[in-house]
Amino acid sequence: MAMDGPKQLLMALCAAAAVGVTSVIFVLIWVFNYKEGLAWDGGLAEFNWHPVLIVFGFIAVQGFAIIVYRLPWTWKWNKQVMKFIHAGLHLLAFILVVISLVAVFDFHNYAKIPNMYSLHSWLGLMAVILFSQQLVIGVCLYLLPVLPVFWRAAFMPIHVYSGLLLFTSVIAVALMGITEKLIFGLSNPKYKDSPPEAIFVNVLGLLLVLFGALILWIATRTSWKRPSDQNLHILHTNGGGEDNTKRGTALSQLSDQSDVALGDVNKSD
Amino acid sequence: MAMDGPKQLLMALCAAAAVGVTSVIFVLIWVFNYKEGLAWDGGLAEFNWHPVLIVFGFIAVQGFAIIVYRLPWTWKWNKQVMKFIHAGLHLLAFILVVISLVAVFDFHNYAKIPNMYSLHSWLGLMAVILFSQQLVIGVCLYLLPVLPVFWRAAFMPIHVYSGLLLFTSVIAVALMGITEKLIFGLSNPKYKDSPPEAIFVNVLGLLLVLFGALILWIATRTSWKRPSDQNLHILHTNGGGEDNTKRGTALSQLSDQSDVALGDVNKSD
Repeated sequence: MAMDGPKQLLMALCAAAAVGVTSVIFVLIWVFNYKEGLAWDGGLAEFNWHPVLIVFGFIAVQGFAIIVYRLPWTWKWNKQVMKFIHAGLHLLAFILVVISLVAVFDFHNYAKIPNMYSLHSWLGLMAVILFSQQLVIGVCLYLLPVLPVFWRAAFMPIHVYSGLLLFTSVIAVALMGITEKLIFGLSNPKYKDSPPEAIFVNVLGLLLVLFGALILWIATRTSWKRPSDQNLHILHTNGGGEDNTKRGTALSQLSDQSDVALGDVNKSD
Repeated sequence: MAMDGPKQLLMALCAAAAVGVTSVIFVLIWVFNYKEGLAWDGGLAEFNWHPVLIVFGFIAVQGFAIIVYRLPWTWKWNKQVMKFIHAGLHLLAFILVVISLVAVFDFHNYAKIPNMYSLHSWLGLMAVILFSQQLVIGVCLYLLPVLPVFWRAAFMPIHVYSGLLLFTSVIAVALMGITEKLIFGLSNPKYKDSPPEAIFVNVLGLLLVLFGALILWIATRTSWKRPSDQNLHILHTNGGGEDNTKRGTALSQLSDQSDVALGDVNKSD
């Protein structure tokens, strides 16, 4: 049951790519085939930029940005180049999300629909704000040569956790958005009458969950990390476990190993 | 920045307990103060068992079932006892979820509302079915002394991943359910007019996300594992990393170390 061998990594990457691309195709078919298409006119066609840019930018692009270090053919590339791609894709996602928010606020204002009343809007705006903070902190910590390596290493588990939590939250918020749009957007037949559009967009929701599950699986397999990062992880896990049993702080673990970690992080820089 | 020391574990456990209990109080206030209370009459008061049992059973109980191995005062207890508590709490969660599903199907049938048309219902039923499979597979693999230790160890990363993914999905599905209920249940003033109930239940949604974030943080800190499990993890990660660099399969790692892992798993049994 070799679930995390190199063949399985390639299969998982292909599956994630297939499901991600299919999700984007699905949201485009939804908008062009079932809805008003795309425009920037203050109407429903402007609103439609919201689901399109969220599925493309905040889900597909962010998903691939997360696992960009897991592409085996890049493992010989310079780590700094990979960091720029990782940050650049996240920046692209952020720009697309901001445009998608402008579209929905514009539409609401034209149609005299209140903004920010729903749980979808609350969680969505929180996700965007936290995403922008994650981006700024990530660039300051890992791209700019400002902070000492100790802080870079100490913050990495939080960076990874926050990134995966934000990605997961964005998919949850998208599912709430799909629910809202199908309830408000379908009348005669309604959502509860299961017209073709309802079934089609429900399937889009399933695809987004599957995409999220694949990205989370790929991102959390230790043996699929870049070989150099893997060694760093082993050192940390080793130290963490022993220290915790003996002395109980991760800080001491990190400071004990700061010279080792320093060498490794510098090398990967 | 000792984010994963023992003091931080206690703080995180207290925070999770506080947010979990508050969420259950919130759903009860929603149902009794803003809604029709609880009854088993085919009407809205029967429907209300659905959110109450989902928040209590499928979110709070499942959340604590997941992190039951992270309670430091149980680290001296027999591992087998902890496994029974882990499985027993999951079984309790499953029973409560089944009752909550009966309540909602009953209500729909009385009110002639179609079943299973929404993305919420699709993902929710999938989560319940996969949860029951996870429970059966978990009991067969880790409680019954049937399968060889090799399989127990090989399946553990999938067991952990599936469990956390299901827990996360359940929260996402609950947020969609809250969205549906606030849209359908509020009229004059509507959801978009932000009456007190809308604000209150939006806050419940935020609490559920916060609870999920805390449980995921606690569950994924390696240094917060039971000391015996931690040693097992270190062995696996070590082997996985080295093997992956050299030979590239996790299977070989597991078979190489099966005697070591066997000793450790047996000890913890």
